Amino acid sequence: MGLFNRKGYDATSIGDLAAELGVTKSAIYHHFASKEDLLRLAMDDALDELTMVVSAAVSDTDGTSAYERLRGVVRRSVEVLAAHQPAVTLLLRVRGNTPVEVEALKRRRWLDDQLAGLVRAAIAEGALRDDLSPDLVSRLLFGMVNSLVEWYRPSGANDPVTVADAVTSIAFDGLSRRPQRSQ
Amino acid sequence: MGLFNRKGYDATSIGDLAAELGVTKSAIYHHFASKEDLLRLAMDDALDELTMVVSAAVSDTDGTSAYERLRGVVRRSVEVLAAHQPAVTLLLRVRGNTPVEVEALKRRRWLDDQLAGLVRAAIAEGALRDDLSPDLVSRLLFGMVNSLVEWYRPSGANDPVTVADAVTSIAFDGLSRRPQRSQ
Repeated sequence: MGLFNRKGYDATSIGDLAAELGVTKSAIYHHFASKEDLLRLAMDDALDELTMVVSAAVSDTDGTSAYERLRGVVRRSVEVLAAHQPAVTLLLRVRGNTPVEVEALKRRRWLDDQLAGLVRAAIAEGALRDDLSPDLVSRLLFGMVNSLVEWYRPSGANDPVTVADAVTSIAFDGLSRRPQRSQ
Repeated sequence: MGLFNRKGYDATSIGDLAAELGVTKSAIYHHFASKEDLLRLAMDDALDELTMVVSAAVSDTDGTSAYERLRGVVRRSVEVLAAHQPAVTLLLRVRGNTPVEVEALKRRRWLDDQLAGLVRAAIAEGALRDDLSPDLVSRLLFGMVNSLVEWYRPSGANDPVTVADAVTSIAFDGLSRRPQRSQ
């Protein structure tokens, strides 16, 4: 995953992967059918986690408000991203050049649709401001979450909880000081 | 720029570019020294605009508050991104594999440092909440702006002004309904 992200998936050959891993090309082919097979496994690592998190958030069987479920799914998305940073990076950079990439984009679109639905539900219940397009809100909210792949490193200055707090505080409560705004 | 973004810079050859443009390779080499030269010109398109916008925002000669200048630079960054979407996309995907990419990353870092300084100034003047790390705020704020490259298209449903309004409203004022929060 690291090599795919550094060099770009299309520009990385099985030979490059073998050199990076210190094994022969035939050793890789013994375990995986193709380069695409490796990409699929890597992206599924991120997609399976995100699908679980989003599926749980969109089912409201326990009576939690859409607003609370949306705040929760933002927080948990940050955690998934922090724990699966290389896989999520791959997933977000996919271009749709191969069947595996097309399938990953299809699963990403499903996730995006579910999240946009949750934003609409939170607006409908009156918890979120209704002066912005729900689709635009959804894109920007998860755009901020996804931007983490560009700089977040587990060894860096911020732990996942701090980052999740910052993302939810900014997105839901805003950066401006409260008292100043209400004057 | 479109081909670099679709196929990945490393995986794109001068031959690919010639085929895309319907010209010969030697026609390209007549005008440009190398593939890297093309990448540099493309990224400079975005970097020069962003550098102008950020330089203007960090100079407070007219007495505007850091808060207003920060809100303004967020808004103008959205406009630059909308007008130079392919160039900014290239710039954000650069990996530092060549001297031109290293130089672009250096210029990006300068921009990031200036913006982080402006966030710190806005906190210091008491306009922004002070319970979040300024560097984290700066990364997330411009992470949300940069995420536009993934989906914004001039032909799409949202014009740049609508998107800039949404970004600044979410980031500075938050998504939660004001009255509900103060209850």
